[in-house]
Amino acid sequence: MIEGIAASNGVAIAKAYELVTPDLTYEKRSINDPSEEIKRLENALATAKDELEKIREHTRQTMGEEHAEIFSAHLLILDDPEMITPIKDKITNEQVDAETALDETTNSFVEIFKNMDNAYMRERAADIQDVTKRVMAHLLEVTFPDPALIDEEVIVIASDLTPSDTAQLNRKFVQGFATDVGGRTSHSAIMSRSLEIPAVVGTKEVTGAVKQGDIVIVDGMAGNVIVNPTDEEIDTYKKKQADFERQQEEWAKLKNESTLTADNQQVDLAANIGTPEEADNVLEHGGEGVGLYRTEFLYMGKNQLPTEEEQYEAYKDVLEKMGDKPVVVRTLDIGGDKELSYLDLPEEMNPFLGFRAIRFCLENQSIFRTQLRALLRASSYGHLRIMFPMIATLEEFRDAKAILLEEEQNLKDEGQTVADDIEVGIMVEIPSTAVIAKQFAKEVDFFSIGTNDMIQYTMAADRMNERVSYLYQPYHPAILNLLSNVIDAAHAEGKWVGMCGEMAGDATAIPALLGLGLDEFSMSPTSILPARTQIRGLSKETMTSYKDNLLSMGTAEEVIEFIKDKTE
Amino acid sequence: MIEGIAASNGVAIAKAYELVTPDLTYEKRSINDPSEEIKRLENALATAKDELEKIREHTRQTMGEEHAEIFSAHLLILDDPEMITPIKDKITNEQVDAETALDETTNSFVEIFKNMDNAYMRERAADIQDVTKRVMAHLLEVTFPDPALIDEEVIVIASDLTPSDTAQLNRKFVQGFATDVGGRTSHSAIMSRSLEIPAVVGTKEVTGAVKQGDIVIVDGMAGNVIVNPTDEEIDTYKKKQADFERQQEEWAKLKNESTLTADNQQVDLAANIGTPEEADNVLEHGGEGVGLYRTEFLYMGKNQLPTEEEQYEAYKDVLEKMGDKPVVVRTLDIGGDKELSYLDLPEEMNPFLGFRAIRFCLENQSIFRTQLRALLRASSYGHLRIMFPMIATLEEFRDAKAILLEEEQNLKDEGQTVADDIEVGIMVEIPSTAVIAKQFAKEVDFFSIGTNDMIQYTMAADRMNERVSYLYQPYHPAILNLLSNVIDAAHAEGKWVGMCGEMAGDATAIPALLGLGLDEFSMSPTSILPARTQIRGLSKETMTSYKDNLLSMGTAEEVIEFIKDKTE
Repeated sequence: MIEGIAASNGVAIAKAYELVTPDLTYEKRSINDPSEEIKRLENALATAKDELEKIREHTRQTMGEEHAEIFSAHLLILDDPEMITPIKDKITNEQVDAETALDETTNSFVEIFKNMDNAYMRERAADIQDVTKRVMAHLLEVTFPDPALIDEEVIVIASDLTPSDTAQLNRKFVQGFATDVGGRTSHSAIMSRSLEIPAVVGTKEVTGAVKQGDIVIVDGMAGNVIVNPTDEEIDTYKKKQADFERQQEEWAKLKNESTLTADNQQVDLAANIGTPEEADNVLEHGGEGVGLYRTEFLYMGKNQLPTEEEQYEAYKDVLEKMGDKPVVVRTLDIGGDKELSYLDLPEEMNPFLGFRAIRFCLENQSIFRTQLRALLRASSYGHLRIMFPMIATLEEFRDAKAILLEEEQNLKDEGQTVADDIEVGIMVEIPSTAVIAKQFAKEVDFFSIGTNDMIQYTMAADRMNERVSYLYQPYHPAILNLLSNVIDAAHAEGKWVGMCGEMAGDATAIPALLGLGLDEFSMSPTSILPARTQIRGLSKETMTSYKDNLLSMGTAEEVIEFIKDKTE
Repeated sequence: MIEGIAASNGVAIAKAYELVTPDLTYEKRSINDPSEEIKRLENALATAKDELEKIREHTRQTMGEEHAEIFSAHLLILDDPEMITPIKDKITNEQVDAETALDETTNSFVEIFKNMDNAYMRERAADIQDVTKRVMAHLLEVTFPDPALIDEEVIVIASDLTPSDTAQLNRKFVQGFATDVGGRTSHSAIMSRSLEIPAVVGTKEVTGAVKQGDIVIVDGMAGNVIVNPTDEEIDTYKKKQADFERQQEEWAKLKNESTLTADNQQVDLAANIGTPEEADNVLEHGGEGVGLYRTEFLYMGKNQLPTEEEQYEAYKDVLEKMGDKPVVVRTLDIGGDKELSYLDLPEEMNPFLGFRAIRFCLENQSIFRTQLRALLRASSYGHLRIMFPMIATLEEFRDAKAILLEEEQNLKDEGQTVADDIEVGIMVEIPSTAVIAKQFAKEVDFFSIGTNDMIQYTMAADRMNERVSYLYQPYHPAILNLLSNVIDAAHAEGKWVGMCGEMAGDATAIPALLGLGLDEFSMSPTSILPARTQIRGLSKETMTSYKDNLLSMGTAEEVIEFIKDKTE
């Protein structure tokens, strides 16, 4: 048995299919005709781009825009003069072959990114490596692995799965996968959850331990891989697999049910999405609304700002798909770790404490107004709620709302239809806003708590930074106290509170959040039915009776133990 | 009248002395003998180092270690192979003269630092420019300005005052100064406050408007410069000057008084210091203790860690100087924007949310234990209190305290004397700790609130980042609510609360902090007597009656207006 990191739920039993990276070694050569080498490079780039565009389209159709996004990033790398020009210059100046120039140039970029103490930048390094391998294969005229060709039930075994590998996996045949490297938030892990393929990553040794054709079990819940299991083991895991499938069927029965606790109290389970395509996914998994529509994807992977019309179409699409169900759209949250190359934002020493989201929008009003106009125009096609991110002061909310009302008036003056019941709320993700929620509750229509950022700021710890990520503690009693303060403040003014951070879908957090009085839980679509199942087994009254205990505890560990003790 | 930024209080009237930067232009030359040019460079570097060492010593004696520190940084630049090797390489590879190599190399460094959107890095660029000018002057054999030669009462007028200029100003003759550039936190402004020389910076035009020998008035309170004033103006400002001096005499009378409010309630006024020398300054300004002794200066401007013995001597020195008066020593707060070159800490994407202070110390226990041993050994020479920085969880405090107790036992086992009344407290600067102060108050002996960081984290805004520094709002009602929560929690457990951020010495904040119940205010030594004067005029009971108003306000602006309205 090989231990790894559980990346995607489910159990798979099948033959191993080793996805082998082709031999991409080359001999460094001096060349006489740089223009000939540059032409070879350009041909390889063009072929790689064609392939990537096809993979992107395939991914968009099978997995949605958010996942296809990664290939837009890859295509931008191939179009980036800061990457391509140095390769060509190297060919010309050093009179070397295209392979050498490509390899050495991209390696120097990868080294820079890899050495940053930051998971996000290391993922960027992985992107460059993924793209480079594809171009290199075309230069060397060797076949690049094509997982799309798999035509029997297998478990894919690989050192690492690149995003393009994962995107090509055919769900019909690929029963699961296991890799040597990667973590729970690597691209391949995220994609495996979206594809609902059982997966174990970061085993360190699976490629060495498995031969082509071995029988392999992947347990994506426990994070284990069993190679050439005994009959007994196969029976055990077939039972586990059947249990998991039965549980999924149980979940599916709740698809059209509302979310009630054991003592008949109702809460709402909504989903976080990044693209209109994902709205289908929300409905399929029984979501009662969209609790967070992140609009950044409209702005990313492009060379210019999206027009009002493009945005209008996207918002209208989501609203129409969701029908009566509410859709909370978050206005642009750019900056921080999300950059837009075409806006040329300044380098910052602490981007998470920097010029982003509403701070950016209030200073770049034409960008902000375009988005608001698109939203308002789309509002009559469904049930729209508008939410401003990174609000730290009442003035920011007042300014943003004033601009919204101005644009509403402008549209009405132009004779356009605007819904008259649009709720306007804010993300609560900055500690200042959580602390004076009472003052905010008088002016906003709702709160949605963004726990990911709120925890980072409250603990003063960048969760992307591995040296301090242990301080990213959702169960720190300070976080629970802030949540409780926000919820009580809202209810005192008759307003509702949602949560759209990762905590909202966490099985340990859900009982505590019920006890604190949270009204709406917004999570990834696949978490909705398990959450609904869990909530039906919980009594809100009982959970509420634990509130004072939870708020007076000293450490995250005590909180977790207490919740487990009370719900097991 | 020229308007600028008020940098240091007081009024000065005297003749202008223009501090002219010498002509440092040169002609780029091709050279044949690189070794000759390298020798010229090395001679100029050596002379510059000699001078800087003398200036550092002079500064240490007149202004204390903290100010002298800047010259240690300059000396490190001259010793930094990453700076010096490229200059020599340029001479050799490009066969150019030393002046060109020096100028072009340092310029490229300066450009990189200047373009960072960060006040701290821009100051580093200013340091490199300052040092480069001195070396260049020696290469060109022109005289570098020597403000130490001034021998009559003058007001110094300059485009900018470099740290080395400011350090050489003779307080006996230099009555004030005014510059074109710089802000309230530039080195020259900080030094002018320490020297108690009236100063106006950032006027943009003062060098153009003033000729050598003009009569000039510098009003360091209003931030104005008057050139060739009328007799009437001179009379007005002489009166203002006399008022200021009378006020200072009034303040001085309170030097040995305790700090009582108008209704006879006592609070403590302590000082923040960085070096043992500054303890004298604290006593001179009537400080009732040291509320924050920052120990980083023992670790900075060096090539290796300070030994236990060096630290012991420094701590003993401060404790002996302060006698019965308490001294709160903060353990090492390194990381963030404070780097130690010899420790080679990793680059971080968000250093303010990174691996610093107690986070670093708990993982580098030998460094931490050395400091704690030095502190404990020094403890019997005065009234020591120990404080841990950047505490975010109870576990961190418990771990740090356990290590302290272990070292105490070790020392006792070795037969050393350790005081038995050492209070052990924490900085409250991370929101999580402010929120669950109630839980912490059961375990710590005291809190000291570090408002500078606490405001940054609570508002999620890097105050060094000019794009978002408007969000650094000490009067945001969330900050007041957190302060109130910390103070109430401590008092409920019979513990005391100090504040050692900039807010503690701010005249607008003091009435509010009295009302919230703060016990100890720790500030720069020169702020103590004005604060004592102010507090004697305030009724604590009245201020306490405003507490609920302050805590329920919506914006920082409302808070400021309310305080002004109630205290004017």
